Amino acid sequence: MALVVQKFGGTSVGSIERIQHVARLALDSQARGDDVVLVVSAMSGETNRLVELAMQIRPIPFSQEYDLLISSGEQIAVGLVTLAINTEAERRGWLKKGEIAAKGLLGYQVGIFTDSIFSKARIQGIDTTRLKSLISSRVIPVIAGFQGVDPESNITTLGRGGSDTSAVAIAAALKADDCEIYTDVDGVYTTDPRLCSDAKKLDRISYEEMMELASLGAKVLQIRSVELAAKYRLPLHVRSSFSSVEGTRVVSQDLLGEQMEQVVVSGVAADGAQVKMTLQNLTEGPGVAAKIFGALSRASIVVDVIIQDIPASGMLTISFTVGRVDHLKAREVLEDLKEQSLPSMRIAEEGDLAKVSVVGVGMQHHPGVASKMFQLLADAGISIKLITTSEIKISCLIASGQMKQAVECLHRGFELHRM
Amino acid sequence: MALVVQKFGGTSVGSIERIQHVARLALDSQARGDDVVLVVSAMSGETNRLVELAMQIRPIPFSQEYDLLISSGEQIAVGLVTLAINTEAERRGWLKKGEIAAKGLLGYQVGIFTDSIFSKARIQGIDTTRLKSLISSRVIPVIAGFQGVDPESNITTLGRGGSDTSAVAIAAALKADDCEIYTDVDGVYTTDPRLCSDAKKLDRISYEEMMELASLGAKVLQIRSVELAAKYRLPLHVRSSFSSVEGTRVVSQDLLGEQMEQVVVSGVAADGAQVKMTLQNLTEGPGVAAKIFGALSRASIVVDVIIQDIPASGMLTISFTVGRVDHLKAREVLEDLKEQSLPSMRIAEEGDLAKVSVVGVGMQHHPGVASKMFQLLADAGISIKLITTSEIKISCLIASGQMKQAVECLHRGFELHRM
Repeated sequence: MALVVQKFGGTSVGSIERIQHVARLALDSQARGDDVVLVVSAMSGETNRLVELAMQIRPIPFSQEYDLLISSGEQIAVGLVTLAINTEAERRGWLKKGEIAAKGLLGYQVGIFTDSIFSKARIQGIDTTRLKSLISSRVIPVIAGFQGVDPESNITTLGRGGSDTSAVAIAAALKADDCEIYTDVDGVYTTDPRLCSDAKKLDRISYEEMMELASLGAKVLQIRSVELAAKYRLPLHVRSSFSSVEGTRVVSQDLLGEQMEQVVVSGVAADGAQVKMTLQNLTEGPGVAAKIFGALSRASIVVDVIIQDIPASGMLTISFTVGRVDHLKAREVLEDLKEQSLPSMRIAEEGDLAKVSVVGVGMQHHPGVASKMFQLLADAGISIKLITTSEIKISCLIASGQMKQAVECLHRGFELHRM
Repeated sequence: MALVVQKFGGTSVGSIERIQHVARLALDSQARGDDVVLVVSAMSGETNRLVELAMQIRPIPFSQEYDLLISSGEQIAVGLVTLAINTEAERRGWLKKGEIAAKGLLGYQVGIFTDSIFSKARIQGIDTTRLKSLISSRVIPVIAGFQGVDPESNITTLGRGGSDTSAVAIAAALKADDCEIYTDVDGVYTTDPRLCSDAKKLDRISYEEMMELASLGAKVLQIRSVELAAKYRLPLHVRSSFSSVEGTRVVSQDLLGEQMEQVVVSGVAADGAQVKMTLQNLTEGPGVAAKIFGALSRASIVVDVIIQDIPASGMLTISFTVGRVDHLKAREVLEDLKEQSLPSMRIAEEGDLAKVSVVGVGMQHHPGVASKMFQLLADAGISIKLITTSEIKISCLIASGQMKQAVECLHRGFELHRM
């Protein structure tokens, strides 16, 4: 008898029919003898609907009340999934009068404790008392993903895709045997199938590769969830709620075995929503970069690809990229900074950029991957605006209009269509 | 400086424009020197949308998870109203960096404690600590109406229109000077203006009359909110958020003064959603009625107009009406009862009924109101199926197709168009 945490994403609970299907899946797992805990996202489209309402009031809405607002999407899904499980269990004749098969729980009801960084909160701890008591009574806890509660009992949210992190954190806290991430694709692919028809599904992938893929825009899993799974060596199983085929298992590198060792590059990732910000005419001196990136960090803005250059003029130039979602907030922070302490600074922006990356654990033992990537892009007539590398990935910033073409030429060039 | 609780109904927060208007109203009140506490309903249409989702899963959804689901409607409104107030206060230049003008609070965050009767919970107590601390810092608390929290920290809801009760309970707990109920009509009318174009707005009405009107289907205020206001002698001011004209003040009978004393009938109420249930072939004996109405009451079903009759056969017949919303649940309770202990009982139902009533404090000192009412209906060719009376109201059950005609003839017959 295993303890399984099952996480269902937005499309998996996107309609009443899908919700009823989730109810059957959960009860079937329980009938096979497993203990089941569910974590659910908001119905697809719901979070966007709420965000658009907020945006009509304020273009940069992140705040306490914004989290209060958008966390209601998961609450709706929890209510409906719980209702569907109880109704289905009753239909199957599994319930005596007064018994329940499932109980819905919000972040504060479980005790999912976070810090107070609204819209990007981090989980500090999870109280498992109530969950364990429900599990031991064979009641399925249905938990709202994406949300927690801060020390002042305000509702917080964990950032886009945060339900994955909720699921992994709960699985880790409960020492679950497995954490199944149900989504609308049947696993992790060598690249985004919408961008490249040659994309192939991977049976297994290491936490490290998955982290690079996740951070580079493969939206299958939130990166923090993979970090957390790696930390607790919790096996993840990314699979589709629309079919019963095996998905992709995300496991430790040492469990990958022979199969992957010959592979140099295991995936190509792409993220189209990038804005490059360039800060010119900065007076050189110690602490300038720290001042800038400190201010951005305090505003919880994730900065990527930083480049610093001192032209002949002696005035400093710093460039970096931010996701489009953080763009307006970053500009506001920088303008405050300019006013307060960097009066000479000029802020320039370039939108419509994409980041394409190749990822692979094998890469660290194989030289020449970088030069091959640059050559493949050059052959396709794509110019590279910025480059960054890590041990297991190489990323290039390009014009977003060329993203699809870049993914296709890299996927083919690294022979991922043969996997 | 007064402490004012302002409650905004669904249409008053029905769009982003309306929400921004509410934000301005609240801040304007504060600018005039008042301390303001807001209680908000779900955006109009939102609760129905959620109920319809639940109904697709289960026709009689009332349960823990149902309350969890539908309480999210108020949560969305609270998030948006709070966001709008903070944005407007910032626009007006009233906030220093880091300050807030409003803080959104859900039932459990305030501490609105209820019993565990889901979908019809009653408030047991309200913790005012957090509210008082916000008020003393000149921060406007924006509270989710309609919801509370039970002793097991489950979310409960107070029944349709429950936000009125939330507002009055909060105003009573805070010993507020005034409780303003903002809605889409500009006050309480002698009858429903949609049913009778002669309807006149009342400047003042007593709690007692308002209670009868509320319980009879004038949907301006939830009856429990009026009961509660009467108990604490809290003045209510029913008014429109769409105009600045004075609305109707609901006050103690002794504060009404001369004006009302001459009026015998002050209003005509109508409620179209009634079902008559008739239980036939019951064996006579002590405790039959207690058994039936006890079971209905335990299921939190509100029963109206009870009639008991013993025909020549010696078998007992009991008839009563329930609101259409409780109809399916009532049938389920009765069928359970038949199976368990009343095997001979036959259950008959008649839908499509309406209740029309005349209400007036003056009525108790004026004989002849009942006979006049029956005559007016008879003259209009409307047959009466059941009659009930109290000290200040007389109700008749009629076919719902004749409801509008009945309201018009009673309104004119009692000369309410002259008020």
